[in-house]
Amino acid sequence: MTAPASSEAPIRVAVLGPDGRMGAQTVRAVEAAADMELVATVGSGDSLSAVTDAKATVVIDFTRPDAVMDNLRFAVDAGLHAVVGTTGFDDERIATLSGWLAGKPDLGVLIAPNFALGAVLAMRFAQQAARFYDAAEVIELHHNRKADAPSGTAAHTARLIALARADAGRGPAADATTSGIEGARGADVDDVRVHSVRLPGLVAHEEILFGAEGETLTIRHDSLDRVSFMPGVLLGVRTVGSRPGLTVGLENVLDL
Amino acid sequence: MTAPASSEAPIRVAVLGPDGRMGAQTVRAVEAAADMELVATVGSGDSLSAVTDAKATVVIDFTRPDAVMDNLRFAVDAGLHAVVGTTGFDDERIATLSGWLAGKPDLGVLIAPNFALGAVLAMRFAQQAARFYDAAEVIELHHNRKADAPSGTAAHTARLIALARADAGRGPAADATTSGIEGARGADVDDVRVHSVRLPGLVAHEEILFGAEGETLTIRHDSLDRVSFMPGVLLGVRTVGSRPGLTVGLENVLDL
Amino acid sequence: MTAPASSEAPIRVAVLGPDGRMGAQTVRAVEAAADMELVATVGSGDSLSAVTDAKATVVIDFTRPDAVMDNLRFAVDAGLHAVVGTTGFDDERIATLSGWLAGKPDLGVLIAPNFALGAVLAMRFAQQAARFYDAAEVIELHHNRKADAPSGTAAHTARLIALARADAGRGPAADATTSGIEGARGADVDDVRVHSVRLPGLVAHEEILFGAEGETLTIRHDSLDRVSFMPGVLLGVRTVGSRPGLTVGLENVLDL
Amino acid sequence: MTAPASSEAPIRVAVLGPDGRMGAQTVRAVEAAADMELVATVGSGDSLSAVTDAKATVVIDFTRPDAVMDNLRFAVDAGLHAVVGTTGFDDERIATLSGWLAGKPDLGVLIAPNFALGAVLAMRFAQQAARFYDAAEVIELHHNRKADAPSGTAAHTARLIALARADAGRGPAADATTSGIEGARGADVDDVRVHSVRLPGLVAHEEILFGAEGETLTIRHDSLDRVSFMPGVLLGVRTVGSRPGLTVGLENVLDL
Repeated sequence: MTAPASSEAPIRVAVLGPDGRMGAQTVRAVEAAADMELVATVGSGDSLSAVTDAKATVVIDFTRPDAVMDNLRFAVDAGLHAVVGTTGFDDERIATLSGWLAGKPDLGVLIAPNFALGAVLAMRFAQQAARFYDAAEVIELHHNRKADAPSGTAAHTARLIALARADAGRGPAADATTSGIEGARGADVDDVRVHSVRLPGLVAHEEILFGAEGETLTIRHDSLDRVSFMPGVLLGVRTVGSRPGLTVGLENVLDL
Repeated sequence: MTAPASSEAPIRVAVLGPDGRMGAQTVRAVEAAADMELVATVGSGDSLSAVTDAKATVVIDFTRPDAVMDNLRFAVDAGLHAVVGTTGFDDERIATLSGWLAGKPDLGVLIAPNFALGAVLAMRFAQQAARFYDAAEVIELHHNRKADAPSGTAAHTARLIALARADAGRGPAADATTSGIEGARGADVDDVRVHSVRLPGLVAHEEILFGAEGETLTIRHDSLDRVSFMPGVLLGVRTVGSRPGLTVGLENVLDL
Repeated sequence: MTAPASSEAPIRVAVLGPDGRMGAQTVRAVEAAADMELVATVGSGDSLSAVTDAKATVVIDFTRPDAVMDNLRFAVDAGLHAVVGTTGFDDERIATLSGWLAGKPDLGVLIAPNFALGAVLAMRFAQQAARFYDAAEVIELHHNRKADAPSGTAAHTARLIALARADAGRGPAADATTSGIEGARGADVDDVRVHSVRLPGLVAHEEILFGAEGETLTIRHDSLDRVSFMPGVLLGVRTVGSRPGLTVGLENVLDL
Repeated sequence: MTAPASSEAPIRVAVLGPDGRMGAQTVRAVEAAADMELVATVGSGDSLSAVTDAKATVVIDFTRPDAVMDNLRFAVDAGLHAVVGTTGFDDERIATLSGWLAGKPDLGVLIAPNFALGAVLAMRFAQQAARFYDAAEVIELHHNRKADAPSGTAAHTARLIALARADAGRGPAADATTSGIEGARGADVDDVRVHSVRLPGLVAHEEILFGAEGETLTIRHDSLDRVSFMPGVLLGVRTVGSRPGLTVGLENVLDL
C-alpha cells in the first residue's frame, strides 16, 4: 500500500536481523518508504543499544526463535513499539509478552506469522464466505522441494472454514464417494478436504473453492516472491503505534 | 444457506410472476424450504387479492417493470413485506417507494438486482481487497449469445473497485502500454480495465484480479444455473421482516 | 464440428436406444445435422429390421451392455457401419467383434468410451507434453453426487502420462514430502498424483498440470452438458465408413 | 528433458554472448548438462577463433541482431552446427542463411524466436484443437512494465488459430455483442479476440480458450523465469546435428 502523503516526521525504524532473507528485504523496503527512516540495524552479535542510541520508535524483528524474546524484552523496557515476523510463538511466549506489556499501556506489539496481505485476505474472505456454501475444499500448490503437505497456511484456512461452518450450524459437507483410490479425496482437516500439488515451476499458491447448487466461488492467492510480504510489514509499522497491547495476526490490522 | 432449525410457524409466502423463469424456480424453492409455506401465486392477469386472502406475510416479485410498482403499492398498503427481483428501478422509483414506506415503520422491502450470493460476495471481497493492491482488472466470460459487453455485473464491480481505490487515496494504476492493437487492454471503466470473453460452452463467470509486487489475488465466481439465485431469495424472505424500510442490494443482508 | 458443405446425399442413420439420455440427445443431433438423415430409431423391444427396411448405412448404438453385441452382430451381417457409445467392452468382446469384421473388409465400427472431443484432446495433449516435463499431476473436479474418486477419465489420463514418461526414459517425479496429513498428496496412479475435488455447483472438470523449472503448462477441460458429446458422435458417423475394421477410441479419428 | 543416458562423448559447445541474460543462463545450463561440454565462450569484442581452437561442434548464439549474421557466416564456414536465440531474422536474412547452407549438406542451423517448451507446446495444441471448436479466444497476462499489448506470442497464437480454422473451412466465430464499452471484446487478430491483462505480481502467462456447446477446453502456460528456456536450448543442441539445413521454430524439433 502506498504511504499516505504526509508532512509528518518519518517513523524512525530499527531492523533486527538485517542479514536474513526477510530482514534484508525489510531493510530495502524501509529505505524505500517515504514515511519511514531506517535509523539502525542490529545483526547477530551486535549490541541492541544501537537501537536506542539512534532514537528508533519502532523495531522490526526478523531474527530467530532463540533471540526474539530478549529483543522484545529490550524493546518493551525501552518503550519501543515492535513488529515481529520471527516464528516460534507458543502460548507461553504470548503470555510472557502480554505480561510485559501490561505495565505499558501505550506500547504496541504486532506478531504476524504471515505478512502476505493476499494470504491474509484470502483467509478472511474464506471465513466470510464459508457459511453461505454447502461445501468447501482447499487446493494448495507448491514447488516440489516443500517437505510438508498440506502447507500450514492451507491447513489453517481449512480450520477457519470449519469454524465458520460450525458457527453457522452447518455440519460436515456430504460426500458421496464410495469407491476409489486411497488419497484421491485429499487430507481431512476438520472435515474440510485439502489437496496438495507439488511441481517444479510452481512457487506458492492457494485456491479455496466453495460450492452450492448452480454456482461456485473461488479465491486464489499466488505468491511468487517474498517482496510481497513488505506491504504487510510496512502496514504493521504504520499502525502498531496506534494499537496498544499485543496483536497477533496481520488480519487484525487490516480493518476489513 | 440451510434454514435454521426452528419450531416457529413457517413464513407465509406469495409469489408474483410464478410463470417466468425466475418465478417458476422461486415457486419450487419456497415449496422446498422447511421454514416457508407457499400460500399464493399470482400470475399475469390474476387478482392480487389472492395474496391477502391467503394471509401471506411476504411477497416475492419476479414480474415485469410495468407491473412491479402496482404490486408494491398493493403490498405496502396491505402491510406485507416484499422481496423484489424485478428490474427497472431507477432513482425515481426508489424515491416513490421510499415515500410509501415512510408511513409504515415496521415494513421491509428488499430490492436486489442480483440474488446470486457468490456474485454479491465476489463484489464485496473486491471492495475490501482493492485498497491493498497496486492495480486490479476484471475478466468476465459469458456464452456467445450475450448482447452487451462488458456485463453489468463486471462493470459494477469495476466501479466499486474504483471507488474503494479513490477512498484509499489511490489514483489510476500505472499502465506501461505504448504500442499494440486497439482493444487489447479491454474496456476502461473508471480507470479499471474490464475484458469480455464470449464463447459457446461458457455460462456466466467473473474473475477479479489484484496485483502487487510478488503476488496476485484472484476472486472468481462461476454461475451455471439460475437455481443458484434461490439461496439469496430465501435469505431475503427470512430477513426482510426484521429489516424495516427499503434495502437495495443483497449485500446489505449478508452481515459480512 | 460443422458439417462440410456438400452436394452429396446425406448419410442414412439409425439410432438404437433413442430413449436413453445419450440416445435422445443423439436423435436431436442427427436430425439437426445437414449432412445426415435419421431414417430409423429402434427402442428396447423393437425389431432391428426397421434399420434395414429404412436403408440405413450407419447405426449408432447407445443401448445397454446386454443388448449391444446382438445389435452389432445384426449390423455386421447387414453390412452397416456402426458408431458405439454403449459401455461394457472387455477384451473378449473386442476379440469377438474383430472376428466378425475379419470377413467384411469394407465395414467400419467405432467404439468410443468417451465422445467428448475436449476430453479426448486433453488426454492426447497430456500424452504429447508428458515427456518434456519433470513432473505432472491431475486434478479432477466433479459434483458431489459422484461415487468414485478419482474419475475414470482422470485415472486414465494419469496412466497415459505415466506411459509417455516411461517411453521417454523418465522415472517417477521427485517428491520431497516427508511430513503431513494422510491423503494430502492425492491418489497414486502409476506414480502420477491425482486429486479429486467434490462440490455442489461443479459438473465435470479435469485439469492436467505439468511443471519444469520456471514454468508450468496446464490443460483444462470443463464439461457442462452431454450435448458436448454430439460433435464427437457426428464426427464418428462421418468418418466410420472410410475407416474399415474396428477402431477403439475417438482419438484415432481426430487425425491430430 | 533429461539427457538420454549415453556412453558417447559429450557435445562440444561454444556460447556466443555469454554475458547477456540469456547467454549467462545458457552457460550455466550447458555446464550442468551431463552430455555437453562447454569448450568456449565468446563475448563482445572477443575473437571467434576461440571457437575453432576449442574444437567446438555446436555454437549457441545469444548475441545481438547486428552481430549474429557474422557469427553464423563464421560457423557455417567452419562446419559448425548452430542454435540461435538472437532476434531480428527477417525474410532476407533467412534467405541469405539458406544460401550459405546450400553448399553444406551436413550442417544444421536452428533459429527459434521462443525456446520455452511450454509456450511452443501451447501453440501447437492450440493449432490442433482449433478446428474442433466453434470459437476461440486468447487471454495473455503480463507484469505492468510491458510496453506492447497484445504480446507477440499471443498475437502469433491467435494467427495460428485463425489459420487452422480457415483450413477446416470455419469462418469467423459468431459474436452477438451489439452494445457495450469500447475495447471490452479485446483486440481483433484475424477474427480471433485477444485480451491483455497487466498487473504487478504477474510475470508472463498465456491462456487459450476454446468453446463448443456444453464444453470448454483451456490451455494455459505460466512462465516465471528464463531458466525455463534452457530445456529448449539444450534440446536444440542435442538435435541440431541430425537435422541438416535451416530449421525455424522449436516446434519443428519436438516431434509431436
